[in-house]
Amino acid sequence: MKVLIVCAHFDAKSFNASLLETAIDTLTAQGHEVRVSDLYAMDFDPVTRPTDFCSPENPDHIRYDTEQRHAVETGTLPEDVKAELEKLLWCDFLILQFPWYWFGLPAIMKGWVDKVFAMGAVYGGGQWYNRGALGGRRAMLAFSTGCFPSMCGPDGINGDMDIILWPIHNGILRFTGFDVLHPHVSYSVNYKSEDQRRQMIKDYAVRLRGLSEEAPIPFNDREDFTRDWRLKPGIPAKSVGQIKTALNASEAKKP
Amino acid sequence: MKVLIVCAHFDAKSFNASLLETAIDTLTAQGHEVRVSDLYAMDFDPVTRPTDFCSPENPDHIRYDTEQRHAVETGTLPEDVKAELEKLLWCDFLILQFPWYWFGLPAIMKGWVDKVFAMGAVYGGGQWYNRGALGGRRAMLAFSTGCFPSMCGPDGINGDMDIILWPIHNGILRFTGFDVLHPHVSYSVNYKSEDQRRQMIKDYAVRLRGLSEEAPIPFNDREDFTRDWRLKPGIPAKSVGQIKTALNASEAKKP
Repeated sequence: MKVLIVCAHFDAKSFNASLLETAIDTLTAQGHEVRVSDLYAMDFDPVTRPTDFCSPENPDHIRYDTEQRHAVETGTLPEDVKAELEKLLWCDFLILQFPWYWFGLPAIMKGWVDKVFAMGAVYGGGQWYNRGALGGRRAMLAFSTGCFPSMCGPDGINGDMDIILWPIHNGILRFTGFDVLHPHVSYSVNYKSEDQRRQMIKDYAVRLRGLSEEAPIPFNDREDFTRDWRLKPGIPAKSVGQIKTALNASEAKKP
Repeated sequence: MKVLIVCAHFDAKSFNASLLETAIDTLTAQGHEVRVSDLYAMDFDPVTRPTDFCSPENPDHIRYDTEQRHAVETGTLPEDVKAELEKLLWCDFLILQFPWYWFGLPAIMKGWVDKVFAMGAVYGGGQWYNRGALGGRRAMLAFSTGCFPSMCGPDGINGDMDIILWPIHNGILRFTGFDVLHPHVSYSVNYKSEDQRRQMIKDYAVRLRGLSEEAPIPFNDREDFTRDWRLKPGIPAKSVGQIKTALNASEAKKP
């Protein structure tokens, strides 16, 4: 596999730094090619700006997505974004690795997505979901949390982890065509002993060695939806995004 | 009301700029006090960095959240963050207004949350969810999308909007104590005529005038959960975060 690991942590002594090192070592030892985008080390600028476009199509009224498409077509994306997009298109396995900030990606990584997942390169023109331009590739989130696993179960106070991650899993990764593996979550890292943290790093290595055997998270295909993008009657919802449909169907079946 | 509007758009001619102007005019005309954090105009830096702490508690191993708490206690938060936190604590109504980027907040606004929602000031020490430090305040998301409403219904291809927004509504706003109003979504703005867009701006003004009458989104309280933060038996799930519990209960009741 050609693996791209995008990582967002500023501390070389952190648990996240150990996760990254382990991933590089483990995957390389297995014969995979590994490239890394260490966003803090790169001082990546996550802010989308009109000045990202040196030759905009519509300078009087910049729309970020259509200017991205124009910049892709004319080869005028900013150099840092161009380099990251090249890595993204190169890989067949993407790992986004980060400390969990406010139930999602840290800003520096969200901005990497905002800028690098460019219209005209990874989506657009009917290329989305199972027809996304990154189809055939796989992706996985790997992150550390402060909270405990029971808080993120189906009945947990934080809500179900599948629901919390829906906008990333479906809205970013599946939207652009990725097959999405279940996340690798290192829970409540700061409440663990050194030994326990070492074990968590080993667990990650074990997980990484078995990646090629894993089945992705199920999603409905575009073809399961009507022309106005609603689930066709009789087609069951495969994922949590449409789970209310399943609940309604279940309630309707009651005597 | 004391209203803080945080806005993330770089173009003064954009639909989002019109939304912002309308909100300022409408709320001011009603006698409310309005303050604005226009993140692009402020050139707000959304990246969390170890150098944010001039006098860190543990300089050899920076943990962002605990350093935030230490900086709150010692009055050493960065000046830009301190100013934003003062506005946040001042307001009793928060509006986050933005163009929808990848099913969520643009990076510049995510980083505003990462940095300004500081441990020790807005959460921590048992202050979370209905006991969050921002309790008694209300919040609302106001955003524009490229997609159509049918895509974000319960059976829509993007998934249900309540599920897409769960990590923001629950994980950021409710987590810190806010009562959260239903979002104000301006759908598929770029597919609308000038007249339609003008009407959407008017609709926003109407919505804003009636804010004080609105009921917030229901969430379960902390007291509804066990000591390991799972919904107590017999307590119904009030929100989509625990909807699998409701589905399981419905399925179990079937003959």
